[in-house]
Amino acid sequence: MSEIPTAAISRLVTYLRILEQLEGQDVSRTSSNDLAERASVTPFQVRKDLAYFGRFGTRGMGYTVPLLKRELMRVLGLNQTWNVVILGMGRLGHAIANYPGANDYRFQYVGLFDSNPELIGREVHSLPIQHVSRLHDFVQGHAHTPQRVDMGFIAVPPEHAQAAAQNLVEAGVRGILNFAPIVIQPRTSERGDIYEPTDEWKNVVIENVDFLAGMKRLAFYILNPHLKLSDTEENT
Amino acid sequence: MSEIPTAAISRLVTYLRILEQLEGQDVSRTSSNDLAERASVTPFQVRKDLAYFGRFGTRGMGYTVPLLKRELMRVLGLNQTWNVVILGMGRLGHAIANYPGANDYRFQYVGLFDSNPELIGREVHSLPIQHVSRLHDFVQGHAHTPQRVDMGFIAVPPEHAQAAAQNLVEAGVRGILNFAPIVIQPRTSERGDIYEPTDEWKNVVIENVDFLAGMKRLAFYILNPHLKLSDTEENT
Repeated sequence: MSEIPTAAISRLVTYLRILEQLEGQDVSRTSSNDLAERASVTPFQVRKDLAYFGRFGTRGMGYTVPLLKRELMRVLGLNQTWNVVILGMGRLGHAIANYPGANDYRFQYVGLFDSNPELIGREVHSLPIQHVSRLHDFVQGHAHTPQRVDMGFIAVPPEHAQAAAQNLVEAGVRGILNFAPIVIQPRTSERGDIYEPTDEWKNVVIENVDFLAGMKRLAFYILNPHLKLSDTEENT
Repeated sequence: MSEIPTAAISRLVTYLRILEQLEGQDVSRTSSNDLAERASVTPFQVRKDLAYFGRFGTRGMGYTVPLLKRELMRVLGLNQTWNVVILGMGRLGHAIANYPGANDYRFQYVGLFDSNPELIGREVHSLPIQHVSRLHDFVQGHAHTPQRVDMGFIAVPPEHAQAAAQNLVEAGVRGILNFAPIVIQPRTSERGDIYEPTDEWKNVVIENVDFLAGMKRLAFYILNPHLKLSDTEENT
């Protein structure tokens, strides 16, 4: 199999979102042209992206919405349960725990952590907020149970985000989703020096969700209404 | 000027974030190699992305961190004030209004709107939440003042997001950042039928921030640890 561009994974997520909307509107069939228009890419791009993962639909016949949706769910691993802990239960952590739509997938919050004594013990969806010093034992204690922690979401202030990631990795969590406005480095770092990844970071996957990135891109696009933009790029 | 890939804009945002971190760590110089490593792209990619917007740095000498940061801020339009209204002041709207880091830029919240009578009149950072029926008059009333509304952020439940976008566009807002888990269509749509964009949608810029997209990509990457991925893609 050829290399898959990470941008194709992002587009799969967009196609899935569109399919869910179509299903919600009782639309049962779609085409690469229709998906392309709704996702603002070319039909060729849609077909190419899907082709990385299998053969979907029938040539000239398009796609069955619920079927393609189910296939994309499978490809993305969304037909299985993912156990999640959240680090940082301020407003952002609460917004994440309560985000509408998360319940449509099998992301399951199993532990909530913060360092603020005032928050410890409060419940969110019947789950008590625990002190972050308990994270390591919590993750280790659930390691070989069905509550095994698959992902850690970071919602702490930016200056504590790298340390929160370090905590998660040392506890044994292998997937990190960072909501703080910094880029988490997949290694131990200190004052801008980057150290080589230690063994514990080797198989850690990090995704950064930048709240502000959307605002910044929007500012750029409003400033440059006549710029010629392309959704694809040359191989470099 | 050649076409600029939208992915390059996203990477500029990432470079800026890295430069801000370096500055916070009192690091004063960087290079395309260093930026590339921190952003998980190739040095060639960094140089190419920057070259779309000008000549930064000196060949073989790298970049001065505060200077390159200032230049990227200018390119992205972040050295000017952007007036923002938020539609939907539930937990998500509150988290957005309080997001750490937004104050580092000149995004300024000038109006908060919701349809829930219990929220109307409550204040967030001294700004009262208003009923959404007042949006049109609010935007029109500020149209030719320094409080002119530049952007509308959508934080309503997904089933109301497309209508919220329609409200914003009809009121005259030309930039939309959507936080709801649907893809906003840049046109009037009904039950899955897509109508041609009406005139009022013509110059509207929409960016979708998908909270769940990060979770979904993370699930995929955890599931596929040995997949060969590439950060660039062929032109299609």
